[in-house]
Amino acid sequence: MKCEQDFVNFLQKLESYSGNILKGIGDDCSIVKFNNKKKYVFTTDTSLLGPHFTKDYSPEDIGYKCLATNISDIASMGCMPLYAMYALTLPKMSESWLKRFYKGSQKLLKQHKVSIIGGDTTRGPLSITIQMIGIQKHNILLRSGAKLGDDIYVTGTIGNARAALLSKKRTLAYSYFKKYLVNPTPRVALGLEISKFASSCIDISDGLAKDLKNIALSSDKGFVVNVDKIPLRPKFSHFIPEKLLEECILGGGEDYELCFTANNKYNNNINTISNKLKLKITKIGSITSKGYKYIKDGKAYKVKTKGYDHFSNR
Amino acid sequence: MKCEQDFVNFLQKLESYSGNILKGIGDDCSIVKFNNKKKYVFTTDTSLLGPHFTKDYSPEDIGYKCLATNISDIASMGCMPLYAMYALTLPKMSESWLKRFYKGSQKLLKQHKVSIIGGDTTRGPLSITIQMIGIQKHNILLRSGAKLGDDIYVTGTIGNARAALLSKKRTLAYSYFKKYLVNPTPRVALGLEISKFASSCIDISDGLAKDLKNIALSSDKGFVVNVDKIPLRPKFSHFIPEKLLEECILGGGEDYELCFTANNKYNNNINTISNKLKLKITKIGSITSKGYKYIKDGKAYKVKTKGYDHFSNR
Repeated sequence: MKCEQDFVNFLQKLESYSGNILKGIGDDCSIVKFNNKKKYVFTTDTSLLGPHFTKDYSPEDIGYKCLATNISDIASMGCMPLYAMYALTLPKMSESWLKRFYKGSQKLLKQHKVSIIGGDTTRGPLSITIQMIGIQKHNILLRSGAKLGDDIYVTGTIGNARAALLSKKRTLAYSYFKKYLVNPTPRVALGLEISKFASSCIDISDGLAKDLKNIALSSDKGFVVNVDKIPLRPKFSHFIPEKLLEECILGGGEDYELCFTANNKYNNNINTISNKLKLKITKIGSITSKGYKYIKDGKAYKVKTKGYDHFSNR
Repeated sequence: MKCEQDFVNFLQKLESYSGNILKGIGDDCSIVKFNNKKKYVFTTDTSLLGPHFTKDYSPEDIGYKCLATNISDIASMGCMPLYAMYALTLPKMSESWLKRFYKGSQKLLKQHKVSIIGGDTTRGPLSITIQMIGIQKHNILLRSGAKLGDDIYVTGTIGNARAALLSKKRTLAYSYFKKYLVNPTPRVALGLEISKFASSCIDISDGLAKDLKNIALSSDKGFVVNVDKIPLRPKFSHFIPEKLLEECILGGGEDYELCFTANNKYNNNINTISNKLKLKITKIGSITSKGYKYIKDGKAYKVKTKGYDHFSNR
């Protein structure tokens, strides 16, 4: 058991004692039925100093980002976030730190009407675990629904979080990319809209190549992606050299944009949603029967990056 | 904001966006309605190397205890545990460690029919956060329901976890107390039985004096406790000197027995439950209008201990 996927496989084999668990571990959230009408989705994420935030993050930044990543998991299921539980491990109890931390969370709590329903504090190395519960509005999106011939889409622009990490602090490049790394926007409204018709969805947290592979594996399909179509911010190539492009846009996680698949008959719906939400949605490829293929400059392109894994990639 | 209670007070002031949250932060669990018939309780607890377990704990012990403390929070609300989410931070991904960890959890998962519905793994200093969801069977027990004249009861015997911590490892004393510290028994069946009539309940996690004070504060009442009535294991005073008695039975947490209050007309019901569950239930005092009074050897007794707080008590 060397990487997170092994751990997920292991957990999936554990016994379930409830008929109300419609989907256990393996997607961005699990799905649980509480009565006959509504389904709820559950997720949990730990954020640590080091892998998830660095010393230059303000308490507000930490409060924002820890919550944003959890809300993103709910968004990728096409659901609405409802409740959060905070388990904080802090080196010392500081009123000003906690107030600033919650101020950072509050913007998202207000925007998405999320209520905090539980908390625990412990003394130790800084660590924040948030659990989140969301509710189905239309369909619930899984990784496993992609169909042969479906289009593959991504929201926003890709690679900015990794570009920020690769840029030196206090440079123009860093300030150009920083907000995407520190204050990512969970795509809740978009998730809800596409949940009416999309066949699968994932949030780009471990890198597009790895996340898309997860969709393909779960759906028992393959894909072809045109690397040149992956949407970048206008000055991306001004700040990031060509040799780091792949690492940013295919290997780099933490973008928290959504990657989803849909039958091409929904092309117009997607344009309408894009206009309504003022959010760029770009077709980058399509679902095939097998294999993970990339095209760049009209030629087959071999991807070296493996994407983020908490235990393998260091 | 120097201790956990300040943090709880702070969280309680945060905005709620849902009419379905019947009780927010402040009890052992929060209470959420998912439809008109059933209420659910939510709790989260972090366990760390140091405050919650030590290096001599086996992975099985850690897997057991982390889950037991969460189940105990559900038991203290008089509810049935249903689902758990595990957020693990591990120094490295070890298959054998994880298998042994889950083996420790599995005994409790099986016994209480708890299903794991979510997980996250991160690399860092060992830390385990478990979130648990339980369901109401009869009434939900709160800290706040104690009435003037109610009897105060505790289950099992008290002070064993602290006695183990105060005993040297590899002594007869340590082996006499160890299992109460390392493998505490969450009192789910008892919690469900007393939820039919008890007026308030808490699990003894921070020390009887502090936990009972929490009941009194939440209920706007006082109490009188006869220290000589607090139930001890037969050889308790053989192993623990008199001067450490108070620290063990009033200050020491982690017993995970239940402390509850009930009108004295339920005396017979309590005897019946005690016989049915083969679990000692002892009346140790009663609820008064105000003040926290202790009696020992027939005289007023002044308690020095303050009970456990993650941030103040070191």
